[in-house]
Amino acid sequence: MKTNHIKPICTIKTPYKTIAQCPRNICADGAICHLLIEQEYAEASIDLTVDQPIIILYWLGGQLDTAQEYLVSNDEKNWRSVFSTRSPVRPNPIGVAVLEVDYIDGTKIVVTGLDCLDGTQLLDIKPAIHKELHQKA
Amino acid sequence: MKTNHIKPICTIKTPYKTIAQCPRNICADGAICHLLIEQEYAEASIDLTVDQPIIILYWLGGQLDTAQEYLVSNDEKNWRSVFSTRSPVRPNPIGVAVLEVDYIDGTKIVVTGLDCLDGTQLLDIKPAIHKELHQKA
Repeated sequence: MKTNHIKPICTIKTPYKTIAQCPRNICADGAICHLLIEQEYAEASIDLTVDQPIIILYWLGGQLDTAQEYLVSNDEKNWRSVFSTRSPVRPNPIGVAVLEVDYIDGTKIVVTGLDCLDGTQLLDIKPAIHKELHQKA
Repeated sequence: MKTNHIKPICTIKTPYKTIAQCPRNICADGAICHLLIEQEYAEASIDLTVDQPIIILYWLGGQLDTAQEYLVSNDEKNWRSVFSTRSPVRPNPIGVAVLEVDYIDGTKIVVTGLDCLDGTQLLDIKPAIHKELHQKA
């Protein structure tokens, strides 16, 4: 099957310089983080508003290449298949977070509680909609 | 900034052969769809279970290259910056859906209500967690 390229639209500024410092998940009372939109994409973000719920996608960096790694371990005893985990090391290491816009200053968007390394590449911002979490009737 | 490659892990089978046929969003009472996991990734998906809430990421195919297209129109009057829309045509055209696993048959995973074309490439499956939609304290 063919491969596709992804292009970073932004660098994410967080307080975390090592993976050991990163929280295991996003957290509403976590650290203040900045999405620093590349100038090329300034126009693509002008309609974002404060308090708006957004989904962001970001590149976690640990791309798997071999099937030997498709079982991952949280604690060296409990092995799980990678699609049943939130491990950052996966075939397409794309993180997903739903959160709100705290503040906007030009091409800098301020959010709270991300779980990724400082310098992580942002891939997309979308409005979050209720149907994201649809419940079965 | 450097580019990264993404690799399809699966083909999505839906009833929609044209974009005009696709629903505008995912829908709990929509069509039955099949995630046909590539054999290489069979082991990566063995711990998925029926009724489990999952997030899937899929490649929408309409990748933007020029800044001229970063404003998109829903109705030819109402122009919006692309990161404030769910347009499938965007710098990194990755769709996100949160839904439940209906049924599993080997490497075929059955879900309901996707909004994408038949043959769409799936990039990732993750367990959905409550914190995805965190609320501010």
